[in-house]
Amino acid sequence: MPLELPTLTVTELMAQISSTGQDPLRGGYTRPVYSPAELDLRAWFIEQAERRGVSVEQDGNGALWAWWDLPSGDRTDAVVTGSHLDSVPGGGPFDGPLGVASALVAFDLLRERPLNRTRAFAIVVFPEEEGSRFGVACLGSRLLTGAIDPTKALNLRDPDGNTFADVAGKNGLDVRRIGPDPQLLSQIGAFVELHVEQGLGLSELDHPVAVGGSILGHGRWKLSMRGQGNHAGTTLMRDRRDPMVAAARSISAVQQIARAQDNARATVGRLQPVPGGTNVIASRVDFWLDVRHPDDAVTAVLVQQIHEAAQRIAAEEGCGFEFSQESLSPTVTFDAKLSATLGSALNNVPVLDTGAGHDAGVLAGHVPSAMVFVRNPSGISHSPEEYVEDADAELGAQALADALAALLV
Amino acid sequence: MPLELPTLTVTELMAQISSTGQDPLRGGYTRPVYSPAELDLRAWFIEQAERRGVSVEQDGNGALWAWWDLPSGDRTDAVVTGSHLDSVPGGGPFDGPLGVASALVAFDLLRERPLNRTRAFAIVVFPEEEGSRFGVACLGSRLLTGAIDPTKALNLRDPDGNTFADVAGKNGLDVRRIGPDPQLLSQIGAFVELHVEQGLGLSELDHPVAVGGSILGHGRWKLSMRGQGNHAGTTLMRDRRDPMVAAARSISAVQQIARAQDNARATVGRLQPVPGGTNVIASRVDFWLDVRHPDDAVTAVLVQQIHEAAQRIAAEEGCGFEFSQESLSPTVTFDAKLSATLGSALNNVPVLDTGAGHDAGVLAGHVPSAMVFVRNPSGISHSPEEYVEDADAELGAQALADALAALLV
Repeated sequence: MPLELPTLTVTELMAQISSTGQDPLRGGYTRPVYSPAELDLRAWFIEQAERRGVSVEQDGNGALWAWWDLPSGDRTDAVVTGSHLDSVPGGGPFDGPLGVASALVAFDLLRERPLNRTRAFAIVVFPEEEGSRFGVACLGSRLLTGAIDPTKALNLRDPDGNTFADVAGKNGLDVRRIGPDPQLLSQIGAFVELHVEQGLGLSELDHPVAVGGSILGHGRWKLSMRGQGNHAGTTLMRDRRDPMVAAARSISAVQQIARAQDNARATVGRLQPVPGGTNVIASRVDFWLDVRHPDDAVTAVLVQQIHEAAQRIAAEEGCGFEFSQESLSPTVTFDAKLSATLGSALNNVPVLDTGAGHDAGVLAGHVPSAMVFVRNPSGISHSPEEYVEDADAELGAQALADALAALLV
Repeated sequence: MPLELPTLTVTELMAQISSTGQDPLRGGYTRPVYSPAELDLRAWFIEQAERRGVSVEQDGNGALWAWWDLPSGDRTDAVVTGSHLDSVPGGGPFDGPLGVASALVAFDLLRERPLNRTRAFAIVVFPEEEGSRFGVACLGSRLLTGAIDPTKALNLRDPDGNTFADVAGKNGLDVRRIGPDPQLLSQIGAFVELHVEQGLGLSELDHPVAVGGSILGHGRWKLSMRGQGNHAGTTLMRDRRDPMVAAARSISAVQQIARAQDNARATVGRLQPVPGGTNVIASRVDFWLDVRHPDDAVTAVLVQQIHEAAQRIAAEEGCGFEFSQESLSPTVTFDAKLSATLGSALNNVPVLDTGAGHDAGVLAGHVPSAMVFVRNPSGISHSPEEYVEDADAELGAQALADALAALLV
């Protein structure tokens, strides 16, 4: 299978998609799942795989799988790497695409090596890892593994009110096939996801690459305050039931509760007043809460404290209050044996825990999974300031190739 | 000039536009200036005027003027009534359109009376009264009277980033003509605006109609908190500069400051986090403040207190802070002589002050202006729950006709 094109670097591959989904208002990239930008990135991935002589299959949940099969065609115990191409609104260039581009380069590097391969290999692209369109992070891997009920998933709505069923159907998915796929899952012998680091761990250790240790437990909750919409000029303060004030006071409480607990992170990054006019007291304010802590029992206590505080504030402001869980993922410790194999193949690079969720964390409950992190000198992620040095990106792909080589034989 | 059609009631006219601009998400109506819905309402108004044999002229700022000229054609000292057709997001059906529909019906009633008319008459529809698209309320009347600099107006942007210059130009306005029109203004001898009441004053007085006394001083300010966008899972609480927390604490302060001052109203009804993702600490939060008080000096003190509180909170949260005035209208007392003429023509109905801004308040600084209010049993406005009984709507139009008849002779 001769290479038809000169081998590209990670930086060169990333440059090919650097204009796709740029967000002129927020800065960075906005590439929600099944948006024109994300669809362009999928087409780019399929083209890149096909140029390498590898054909791409879409599974029932919209993930793309580029299979480098064995001559026997047997996919049992396959080694899989990959990541995602969707982004948060105004995200950085590396979160997701770095793992996909590095997988392609690792594949090129593996094919140049004298490798006595005994296992099938695939590169996967999961949809809606960020949950930025339908509210549930890692939606593709959750559906694959049965971590979310398909009916619940099909009824999820994007901010414009479109259901996941509608959007997935319009993008060629058979909605009757959406849901767990034990057969596909049983083919995966190991999953390794390379990802940009989303903190300063590697910078502080002065190292370009790490192996993942664990993923912090995390969840998302939707809070709604319901008050009385009215005219901002004619309604006296004492006559108001203002859900914006109730939401604002709740957000202050979130900060205070999280600050009082070591290692807790609690965030409100998204808030929507209805109707949202300057001279209008809102009738409803919806806002979303993200809570994470290494100890799942502590996460539960934090969420309960926030729930109670917001409920008390709602009552004080005369507002109705709703609180619902959108997702919850317990703390994940990656497979010890697989991580040890990786550590050994990579000359015992550091092991880093992460506060960010990943598809590897969802798969970890079902197949041996591991992660490789690449240094991010800004320490910033989900922001245009997320950054990877060109040299580190290439070192990351080489490390991924080394790790995969150790697994494929 | 025979009527070609049977005379319609206000309720019948309002029914003709009851499906235009309905908002399925927020409820009520969303009819921002130059949206398809507002353009449909303009076309409806022009058709209604033309059916009455009255031709419509658009002025340089996009207001529509339906002139019922004198045989001499002299427009000096004309009597003008009218209102607006744009709405806040998710507003009620009556705020604006009731004044336009009542003006059309009053015109029909006037033509049936033996009226020895000595003054020209016009019905006006002002654009962007709510300021819900470009942020400045009463934009049409402010431009007409020179209360806003045309260059500043042309550079206003809607939430999608379009400038007023672009949008007005695409809707047929000559942007070089936008600005004060002293000649048109000099033709107006009296302006009377009929409007749905936006409080419970008339319900409490058990009366269907009132004459306006004064309009509370009011203004709008834009506040921006700038922090550090980052990942919600990987950023410890102590490392954050979270503009959502700074905005939330400021909104609590707005409530506390306004509550401490009798008769003050201060509202944050619109807030936009950037980028606005659930798992993303925002990098910036923009929010808008509406402040009103009968005493303009007190309004200034309230705004100063809020400004200082938000600035202190921004510093405590490590955020940058910007504060800018978008509009400011002093308290307006309507023309005493004109209001007395109206009161007498309407059998000394009650006089009501209002906390809501109106084009009549902007014109009042230049031509004798007055208002007629129609009872709203819900007391609610800028919300789908805004309401007028059919019988009250007809009484309002009859009162308007009586008031205009007293002025036209």
